[in-house]
Amino acid sequence: MKYNVIEVKERVIADNDRVAAAQRARLQEKGIYFINLMGSPGAGKTSVLIRTIEALRNRFRIAVMEADVDSAVDAETISRLGVPVIQLHTAGLCHMDADMTARGIEALMEQEQGAPFDILILENIGNLVCPAEFDVGAAKRVMILSVPEGDDKPLKYPLMFEVSDVVLVNKIDTKEIFDFDEERFRENVRMRNPQAEIFPLSARTGEGMEAWFAWLAQEAERGVRK
Amino acid sequence: MKYNVIEVKERVIADNDRVAAAQRARLQEKGIYFINLMGSPGAGKTSVLIRTIEALRNRFRIAVMEADVDSAVDAETISRLGVPVIQLHTAGLCHMDADMTARGIEALMEQEQGAPFDILILENIGNLVCPAEFDVGAAKRVMILSVPEGDDKPLKYPLMFEVSDVVLVNKIDTKEIFDFDEERFRENVRMRNPQAEIFPLSARTGEGMEAWFAWLAQEAERGVRK
Repeated sequence: MKYNVIEVKERVIADNDRVAAAQRARLQEKGIYFINLMGSPGAGKTSVLIRTIEALRNRFRIAVMEADVDSAVDAETISRLGVPVIQLHTAGLCHMDADMTARGIEALMEQEQGAPFDILILENIGNLVCPAEFDVGAAKRVMILSVPEGDDKPLKYPLMFEVSDVVLVNKIDTKEIFDFDEERFRENVRMRNPQAEIFPLSARTGEGMEAWFAWLAQEAERGVRK
Repeated sequence: MKYNVIEVKERVIADNDRVAAAQRARLQEKGIYFINLMGSPGAGKTSVLIRTIEALRNRFRIAVMEADVDSAVDAETISRLGVPVIQLHTAGLCHMDADMTARGIEALMEQEQGAPFDILILENIGNLVCPAEFDVGAAKRVMILSVPEGDDKPLKYPLMFEVSDVVLVNKIDTKEIFDFDEERFRENVRMRNPQAEIFPLSARTGEGMEAWFAWLAQEAERGVRK
Protein backbone atom coordinates (compact mmCIF):
# COMPACT_ATOMS: atom_id res chain seq x y z
CA MET A 1 0.00 0.00 0.00
CA LYS A 2 1.35 3.44 -0.95
CA TYR A 3 1.79 6.14 1.66
CA ASN A 4 2.73 9.83 1.71
CA VAL A 5 5.38 11.59 3.76
CA ILE A 6 4.28 14.89 5.25
CA GLU A 7 6.53 17.54 6.79
CA VAL A 8 4.37 18.60 9.71
CA LYS A 9 6.63 21.06 11.48
CA GLU A 10 6.69 23.72 8.76
CA ARG A 11 3.76 25.73 10.02
CA VAL A 12 4.93 25.60 13.63
CA ILE A 13 8.34 26.89 12.63
CA ALA A 14 6.89 29.51 10.28
CA ASP A 15 4.68 30.89 13.08
CA ASN A 16 7.65 30.90 15.44
CA ASP A 17 9.89 32.66 12.92
CA ARG A 18 7.35 35.45 12.52
CA VAL A 19 7.19 36.10 16.27
CA ALA A 20 11.02 35.91 16.50
CA ALA A 21 11.57 38.40 13.67
CA ALA A 22 9.22 40.92 15.30
CA GLN A 23 11.00 40.45 18.64
CA ARG A 24 14.40 40.97 17.03
CA ALA A 25 13.26 44.21 15.39
CA ARG A 26 11.81 45.54 18.68
CA LEU A 27 15.03 44.85 20.61
CA GLN A 28 17.25 46.36 17.91
CA GLU A 29 15.14 49.50 18.01
CA LYS A 30 15.67 49.74 21.77
CA GLY A 31 19.44 49.20 21.38
CA ILE A 32 19.36 45.89 23.26
CA TYR A 33 21.84 43.31 21.96
CA PHE A 34 20.23 39.90 22.52
CA ILE A 35 22.22 36.64 22.58
CA ASN A 36 20.75 33.12 22.55
CA LEU A 37 23.26 30.92 24.41
CA MET A 38 22.86 27.20 23.74
CA GLY A 39 24.69 23.97 24.58
CA SER A 40 24.44 20.54 26.22
CA PRO A 41 23.86 20.14 29.95
CA GLY A 42 27.24 20.52 31.62
CA ALA A 43 28.97 22.25 28.69
CA GLY A 44 29.64 25.23 30.95
CA LYS A 45 27.01 27.75 29.83
CA THR A 46 26.60 29.26 33.29
CA SER A 47 30.36 29.36 34.01
CA VAL A 48 31.12 31.14 30.74
CA LEU A 49 28.23 33.50 31.43
CA ILE A 50 29.58 34.40 34.88
CA ARG A 51 33.07 35.17 33.52
CA THR A 52 31.50 37.21 30.72
CA ILE A 53 29.39 39.28 33.11
CA GLU A 54 32.42 39.89 35.36
CA ALA A 55 34.50 41.03 32.39
CA LEU A 56 31.96 43.30 30.72
CA ARG A 57 29.68 44.59 33.47
CA ASN A 58 31.57 47.88 33.81
CA ARG A 59 31.11 48.68 30.14
CA PHE A 60 27.59 47.34 29.55
CA ARG A 61 24.38 46.93 31.48
CA ILE A 62 23.86 43.18 31.25
CA ALA A 63 20.66 41.24 31.99
CA VAL A 64 20.11 37.48 31.94
CA MET A 65 17.19 35.12 31.32
CA GLU A 66 17.79 31.63 32.68
CA ALA A 67 15.64 28.98 31.02
CA ASP A 68 15.32 25.66 32.76
CA VAL A 69 12.92 22.76 32.80
CA ASP A 70 12.20 23.16 36.48
CA SER A 71 14.83 24.54 38.86
CA ALA A 72 16.09 28.04 39.67
CA VAL A 73 19.70 27.05 40.39
CA ASP A 74 21.22 29.11 37.59
CA ALA A 75 19.19 32.26 38.29
CA GLU A 76 20.23 31.94 41.95
CA THR A 77 23.90 31.83 40.88
CA ILE A 78 23.62 34.76 38.46
CA SER A 79 21.61 36.87 40.90
CA ARG A 80 24.59 36.79 43.29
CA LEU A 81 26.53 38.83 40.72
CA GLY A 82 23.99 41.60 41.20
CA VAL A 83 22.81 41.77 37.57
CA PRO A 84 19.13 41.65 36.59
CA VAL A 85 18.06 38.06 36.06
CA ILE A 86 14.82 36.19 35.61
CA GLN A 87 14.17 32.44 35.78
CA LEU A 88 12.00 30.96 33.04
CA HIS A 89 10.45 27.53 33.56
CA THR A 90 9.49 25.47 30.53
CA ALA A 91 8.04 22.76 32.81
CA GLY A 92 9.20 19.79 30.78
CA LEU A 93 9.71 21.36 27.36
CA CYS A 94 13.19 20.88 25.96
CA HIS A 95 13.57 24.25 24.23
CA MET A 96 12.49 27.90 24.36
CA ASP A 97 10.43 29.25 21.48
CA ALA A 98 9.95 32.85 20.39
CA ASP A 99 6.65 33.27 22.20
CA MET A 100 7.98 31.95 25.52
CA THR A 101 11.02 34.20 25.11
CA ALA A 102 8.83 37.24 24.45
CA ARG A 103 6.95 36.53 27.68
CA GLY A 104 10.28 36.25 29.53
CA ILE A 105 11.53 39.58 28.18
CA GLU A 106 8.25 41.24 29.10
CA ALA A 107 8.45 39.85 32.65
CA LEU A 108 12.10 40.85 32.99
CA MET A 109 11.37 44.44 31.92
CA GLU A 110 8.49 44.59 34.35
CA GLN A 111 10.67 43.20 37.16
CA GLU A 112 13.32 45.84 36.43
CA GLN A 113 10.66 48.54 36.11
CA GLY A 114 11.89 49.67 32.74
CA ALA A 115 15.57 50.10 33.75
CA PRO A 116 17.45 49.84 30.44
CA PHE A 117 20.10 47.29 29.57
CA ASP A 118 22.56 46.91 26.68
CA ILE A 119 23.16 43.16 26.52
CA LEU A 120 20.49 40.55 27.17
CA ILE A 121 21.55 36.91 27.35
CA LEU A 122 19.21 33.92 27.27
CA GLU A 123 20.73 30.76 28.70
CA ASN A 124 18.65 28.22 26.79
CA ILE A 125 17.67 24.69 27.91
CA GLY A 126 20.61 22.22 27.86
CA ASN A 127 19.94 20.35 24.61
CA LEU A 128 21.56 20.24 21.16
CA VAL A 129 18.43 19.30 19.20
CA CYS A 130 15.20 21.28 19.64
CA PRO A 131 16.74 24.67 20.61
CA ALA A 132 18.47 24.71 17.20
CA GLU A 133 15.04 24.64 15.52
CA PHE A 134 13.59 27.66 17.32
CA ASP A 135 14.66 31.21 16.53
CA VAL A 136 13.96 33.17 19.73
CA GLY A 137 14.57 36.60 18.19
CA ALA A 138 18.22 36.97 19.23
CA ALA A 139 20.68 39.11 17.28
CA LYS A 140 23.19 36.26 17.44
CA ARG A 141 23.16 32.58 18.42
CA VAL A 142 26.12 31.36 20.45
CA MET A 143 26.64 27.69 21.23
CA ILE A 144 29.03 26.19 23.74
CA LEU A 145 30.60 22.82 23.04
CA SER A 146 32.81 21.44 25.77
CA VAL A 147 35.90 19.39 24.92
CA PRO A 148 34.75 16.19 26.74
CA GLU A 149 31.73 16.04 24.40
CA GLY A 150 34.08 15.26 21.50
CA ASP A 151 35.25 16.82 18.24
CA ASP A 152 32.65 14.88 16.21
CA LYS A 153 29.61 16.72 17.57
CA PRO A 154 29.10 18.89 14.44
CA LEU A 155 28.48 15.65 12.54
CA LYS A 156 25.92 14.42 15.06
CA TYR A 157 24.09 17.71 15.65
CA PRO A 158 24.49 19.45 12.28
CA LEU A 159 21.63 21.93 12.66
CA MET A 160 22.93 23.34 15.94
CA PHE A 161 26.27 24.14 14.30
CA GLU A 162 24.59 25.41 11.16
CA VAL A 163 22.48 28.02 12.96
CA SER A 164 25.15 29.20 15.43
CA ASP A 165 27.03 32.41 14.65
CA VAL A 166 29.62 31.67 17.32
CA VAL A 167 30.96 28.37 18.69
CA LEU A 168 32.70 28.54 22.06
CA VAL A 169 34.87 25.47 22.70
CA ASN A 170 34.93 25.36 26.48
CA LYS A 171 37.24 23.32 28.77
CA ILE A 172 39.95 23.62 26.11
CA ASP A 173 42.52 23.04 28.89
CA THR A 174 41.42 19.38 28.91
CA LYS A 175 41.91 18.73 25.21
CA GLU A 176 44.94 16.45 25.70
CA ILE A 177 43.11 14.32 28.24
CA PHE A 178 40.10 13.86 25.98
CA ASP A 179 42.06 13.51 22.75
CA PHE A 180 40.09 16.41 21.26
CA ASP A 181 41.50 17.31 17.82
CA GLU A 182 40.95 21.06 17.47
CA GLU A 183 41.77 21.11 13.75
CA ARG A 184 39.37 18.26 13.02
CA PHE A 185 36.69 20.01 15.05
CA ARG A 186 37.17 23.23 13.06
CA GLU A 187 36.86 21.27 9.83
CA ASN A 188 33.69 19.57 11.06
CA VAL A 189 32.18 22.95 11.95
CA ARG A 190 33.28 24.54 8.66
CA MET A 191 31.61 21.78 6.64
CA ARG A 192 28.27 22.89 8.11
CA ASN A 193 28.93 26.55 8.68
CA PRO A 194 31.97 28.23 7.06
CA GLN A 195 31.09 31.61 8.64
CA ALA A 196 30.97 30.49 12.28
CA GLU A 197 33.39 32.25 14.63
CA ILE A 198 35.17 29.67 16.77
CA PHE A 199 36.70 30.58 20.15
CA PRO A 200 38.57 27.86 22.06
CA LEU A 201 38.52 28.87 25.73
CA SER A 202 38.36 27.76 29.32
CA ALA A 203 36.06 29.42 31.83
CA ARG A 204 38.12 27.68 34.53
CA THR A 205 41.66 28.79 33.56
CA GLY A 206 40.66 31.96 31.71
CA GLU A 207 42.56 30.84 28.60
CA GLY A 208 41.08 32.29 25.40
CA MET A 209 38.33 34.21 27.19
CA GLU A 210 39.63 37.66 26.13
CA ALA A 211 38.99 36.99 22.43
CA TRP A 212 35.35 36.10 23.18
CA PHE A 213 34.88 39.15 25.42
CA ALA A 214 36.34 41.39 22.69
CA TRP A 215 34.03 39.91 20.06
CA LEU A 216 30.96 40.32 22.24
CA ALA A 217 31.88 43.88 23.29
CA GLN A 218 32.36 44.93 19.68
CA GLU A 219 29.07 43.35 18.61
CA ALA A 220 27.16 44.88 21.51
CA GLU A 221 28.66 48.32 20.91
CA ARG A 222 27.49 48.18 17.34
CA GLY A 223 24.01 47.28 18.63
CA VAL A 224 23.96 50.01 21.27
CA ARG A 225 25.12 52.69 18.82
CA LYS A 226 22.25 51.90 16.44
CA MET B 1 19.58 40.75 43.80
CA LYS B 2 15.99 39.46 43.72
CA TYR B 3 14.61 37.67 40.70
CA ASN B 4 11.27 36.33 39.54
CA VAL B 5 10.39 32.85 38.30
CA ILE B 6 8.11 32.81 35.27
CA GLU B 7 6.21 29.81 33.89
CA VAL B 8 6.63 30.44 30.18
CA LYS B 9 5.01 27.38 28.68
CA GLU B 10 1.45 28.10 29.83
CA ARG B 11 0.35 30.01 26.73
CA VAL B 12 1.91 27.49 24.37
CA ILE B 13 0.09 24.65 26.08
CA ALA B 14 -3.17 26.58 26.32
CA ASP B 15 -3.11 27.26 22.56
CA ASN B 16 -2.31 23.61 21.89
CA ASP B 17 -5.10 22.40 24.16
CA ARG B 18 -7.65 24.50 22.28
CA VAL B 19 -6.64 23.02 18.91
CA ALA B 20 -6.61 19.50 20.42
CA ALA B 21 -10.08 19.82 21.94
CA ALA B 22 -11.53 20.95 18.60
CA GLN B 23 -9.81 18.04 16.86
CA ARG B 24 -11.17 15.55 19.39
CA ALA B 25 -14.71 16.83 18.91
CA ARG B 26 -14.44 16.63 15.09
CA LEU B 27 -13.20 13.03 15.18
CA GLN B 28 -15.83 11.93 17.69
CA GLU B 29 -18.51 13.38 15.44
CA LYS B 30 -17.16 11.33 12.53
CA GLY B 31 -17.07 8.16 14.66
CA ILE B 32 -13.28 7.88 14.45
CA TYR B 33 -11.65 6.52 17.59
CA PHE B 34 -8.23 8.20 17.84
CA ILE B 35 -5.38 6.80 19.97
CA ASN B 36 -2.12 8.61 20.80
CA LEU B 37 0.51 5.88 21.24
CA MET B 38 3.62 6.99 23.13
CA GLY B 39 6.79 5.43 24.54
CA SER B 40 10.60 5.43 24.48
CA PRO B 41 12.56 4.48 21.38
CA GLY B 42 12.74 0.70 21.32
CA ALA B 43 9.83 0.13 23.72
CA GLY B 44 8.06 -1.81 20.97
CA LYS B 45 5.46 0.68 19.74
CA THR B 46 5.58 -0.56 16.15
CA SER B 47 5.57 -4.26 17.13
CA VAL B 48 2.52 -3.84 19.36
CA LEU B 49 0.86 -1.82 16.61
CA ILE B 50 1.42 -4.57 14.03
CA ARG B 51 -0.04 -7.26 16.31
CA THR B 52 -3.00 -5.00 17.09
CA ILE B 53 -3.73 -4.34 13.42
CA GLU B 54 -3.50 -8.06 12.62
CA ALA B 55 -5.92 -8.87 15.46
CA LEU B 56 -8.53 -6.21 14.81
CA ARG B 57 -8.39 -5.45 11.08
CA ASN B 58 -11.33 -7.72 10.27
CA ARG B 59 -13.59 -5.91 12.74
CA PHE B 60 -12.44 -2.32 12.26
CA ARG B 61 -11.07 -0.14 9.49
CA ILE B 62 -7.72 0.92 10.99
CA ALA B 63 -5.47 3.76 9.82
CA VAL B 64 -2.06 4.78 11.15
CA MET B 65 -0.01 7.98 11.36
CA GLU B 66 3.68 7.33 11.94
CA ALA B 67 5.51 10.31 13.43
CA ASP B 68 9.27 10.33 13.23
CA VAL B 69 12.05 12.85 13.35
CA ASP B 70 13.29 11.96 9.93
CA SER B 71 12.88 8.43 8.54
CA ALA B 72 9.99 6.48 7.00
CA VAL B 73 10.98 3.05 8.36
CA ASP B 74 7.84 2.56 10.44
CA ALA B 75 5.40 3.70 7.73
CA GLU B 76 7.17 1.32 5.34
CA THR B 77 6.60 -1.56 7.81
CA ILE B 78 2.95 -0.70 8.46
CA SER B 79 2.18 -0.18 4.77
CA ARG B 80 3.10 -3.83 4.14
CA LEU B 81 0.06 -4.78 6.21
CA GLY B 82 -2.11 -3.05 3.64
CA VAL B 83 -3.72 -0.53 6.00
CA PRO B 84 -3.81 3.21 5.28
CA VAL B 85 -0.70 4.87 6.72
CA ILE B 86 0.97 8.23 6.44
CA GLN B 87 4.47 9.23 7.55
CA LEU B 88 4.79 12.50 9.46
CA HIS B 89 8.20 14.16 9.77
CA THR B 90 8.86 16.52 12.65
CA ALA B 91 12.36 17.24 11.30
CA GLY B 92 14.13 17.42 14.63
CA LEU B 93 11.23 18.14 16.98
CA CYS B 94 10.86 15.64 19.78
CA HIS B 95 7.06 15.59 19.96
CA MET B 96 3.88 16.03 17.94
CA ASP B 97 1.57 18.89 18.84
CA ALA B 98 -2.14 19.28 18.06
CA ASP B 99 -1.55 21.47 15.02
CA MET B 100 0.96 19.07 13.45
CA THR B 101 -1.43 16.19 14.15
CA ALA B 102 -4.33 18.05 12.51
CA ARG B 103 -2.21 18.51 9.40
CA GLY B 104 -1.37 14.82 9.43
CA ILE B 105 -5.02 13.78 9.69
CA GLU B 106 -5.95 16.15 6.89
CA ALA B 107 -3.19 14.71 4.66
CA LEU B 108 -4.18 11.14 5.52
CA MET B 109 -7.83 11.77 4.63
CA GLU B 110 -6.76 13.37 1.37
CA GLN B 111 -4.46 10.43 0.59
CA GLU B 112 -7.32 7.98 1.22
CA GLN B 113 -9.76 10.14 -0.75
CA GLY B 114 -12.29 10.25 2.03
CA ALA B 115 -12.44 6.47 2.61
CA PRO B 116 -13.73 6.15 6.20
CA PHE B 117 -11.93 4.44 9.08
CA ASP B 118 -12.94 3.47 12.62
CA ILE B 119 -9.66 3.48 14.53
CA LEU B 120 -6.87 5.97 13.93
CA ILE B 121 -3.56 5.42 15.72
CA LEU B 122 -0.76 7.96 16.00
CA GLU B 123 2.61 6.43 16.77
CA ASN B 124 4.22 9.42 18.46
CA ILE B 125 7.96 10.31 18.56
CA GLY B 126 9.99 8.00 20.85
CA ASN B 127 10.36 10.18 23.95
CA LEU B 128 8.90 10.13 27.47
CA VAL B 129 9.12 13.88 28.12
CA CYS B 130 7.70 16.35 25.59
CA PRO B 131 4.95 14.12 24.09
CA ALA B 132 3.37 13.96 27.56
CA GLU B 133 2.92 17.74 27.49
CA PHE B 134 1.04 17.91 24.21
CA ASP B 135 -2.56 16.80 23.85
CA VAL B 136 -2.95 15.88 20.18
CA GLY B 137 -6.74 15.51 20.30
CA ALA B 138 -6.84 11.74 20.84
CA ALA B 139 -9.77 10.03 22.61
CA LYS B 140 -7.26 8.08 24.71
CA ARG B 141 -3.52 8.18 25.38
CA VAL B 142 -1.73 4.85 25.49
CA MET B 143 1.89 4.56 26.58
CA ILE B 144 4.18 1.56 26.17
CA LEU B 145 6.84 0.89 28.76
CA SER B 146 9.10 -2.05 28.06
CA VAL B 147 10.43 -4.21 30.87
CA PRO B 148 14.14 -3.52 30.23
CA GLU B 149 13.48 0.19 30.90
CA GLY B 150 12.83 -0.62 34.55
CA ASP B 151 9.96 -0.57 37.06
CA ASP B 152 11.01 2.88 38.38
CA LYS B 153 10.11 4.82 35.25
CA PRO B 154 6.83 6.26 36.67
CA LEU B 155 9.01 8.02 39.26
CA LYS B 156 11.33 9.47 36.65
CA TYR B 157 8.71 10.45 34.06
CA PRO B 158 5.69 11.22 36.23
CA LEU B 159 3.77 13.33 33.72
CA MET B 160 3.81 10.63 31.05
CA PHE B 161 2.19 8.17 33.46
CA GLU B 162 -0.19 10.81 34.77
CA VAL B 163 -1.66 11.63 31.35
CA SER B 164 -1.83 8.06 30.02
CA ASP B 165 -5.18 6.25 30.15
CA VAL B 166 -3.52 2.93 29.39
CA VAL B 167 -0.06 1.59 30.18
CA LEU B 168 1.12 -1.37 28.13
CA VAL B 169 4.04 -3.18 29.78
CA ASN B 170 5.74 -4.76 26.79
CA LYS B 171 8.41 -7.51 26.74
CA ILE B 172 6.86 -8.94 29.93
CA ASP B 173 8.42 -12.31 28.99
CA THR B 174 11.81 -10.83 30.00
CA LYS B 175 10.81 -9.66 33.48
CA GLU B 176 12.90 -12.31 35.28
CA ILE B 177 16.01 -11.39 33.32
CA PHE B 178 15.64 -7.68 34.04
CA ASP B 179 14.47 -8.10 37.65
CA PHE B 180 11.34 -6.12 36.85
CA ASP B 181 8.99 -6.09 39.86
CA GLU B 182 5.47 -5.94 38.39
CA GLU B 183 3.80 -5.16 41.72
CA ARG B 184 6.23 -2.33 42.46
CA PHE B 185 5.64 -0.98 38.95
CA ARG B 186 1.86 -1.03 39.46
CA GLU B 187 2.30 0.84 42.73
CA ASN B 188 4.53 3.42 41.08
CA VAL B 189 1.93 3.97 38.35
CA ARG B 190 -0.97 4.10 40.85
CA MET B 191 0.78 6.81 42.87
CA ARG B 192 0.58 9.06 39.84
CA ASN B 193 -2.52 7.74 38.17
CA PRO B 194 -4.92 5.45 40.08
CA GLN B 195 -7.25 5.16 37.05
CA ALA B 196 -4.68 3.92 34.52
CA GLU B 197 -5.41 0.55 32.92
CA ILE B 198 -2.26 -1.60 33.00
CA PHE B 199 -1.76 -4.47 30.54
CA PRO B 200 1.40 -6.60 30.91
CA LEU B 201 2.03 -8.17 27.52
CA SER B 202 4.58 -9.34 24.99
CA ALA B 203 4.27 -8.52 21.30
CA ARG B 204 6.87 -11.25 20.69
CA THR B 205 5.27 -14.20 22.53
CA GLY B 206 1.67 -12.95 22.32
CA GLU B 207 1.24 -13.27 26.10
CA GLY B 208 -1.33 -10.80 27.46
CA MET B 209 -2.16 -9.31 24.06
CA GLU B 210 -5.80 -10.50 24.07
CA ALA B 211 -6.73 -8.33 27.06
CA TRP B 212 -5.39 -5.25 25.27
CA PHE B 213 -7.18 -6.14 22.02
CA ALA B 214 -10.44 -6.64 23.94
CA TRP B 215 -10.09 -3.28 25.69
CA LEU B 216 -9.36 -1.45 22.44
CA ALA B 217 -12.19 -3.18 20.56
CA GLN B 218 -14.69 -2.28 23.26
CA GLU B 219 -13.51 1.35 23.36
CA ALA B 220 -13.56 1.67 19.58
CA GLU B 221 -17.01 0.12 19.30
CA ARG B 222 -18.34 2.63 21.74
CA GLY B 223 -16.77 5.39 19.58
CA VAL B 224 -18.13 3.99 16.31
CA ARG B 225 -21.66 3.59 17.71
CA LYS B 226 -21.78 7.24 18.76
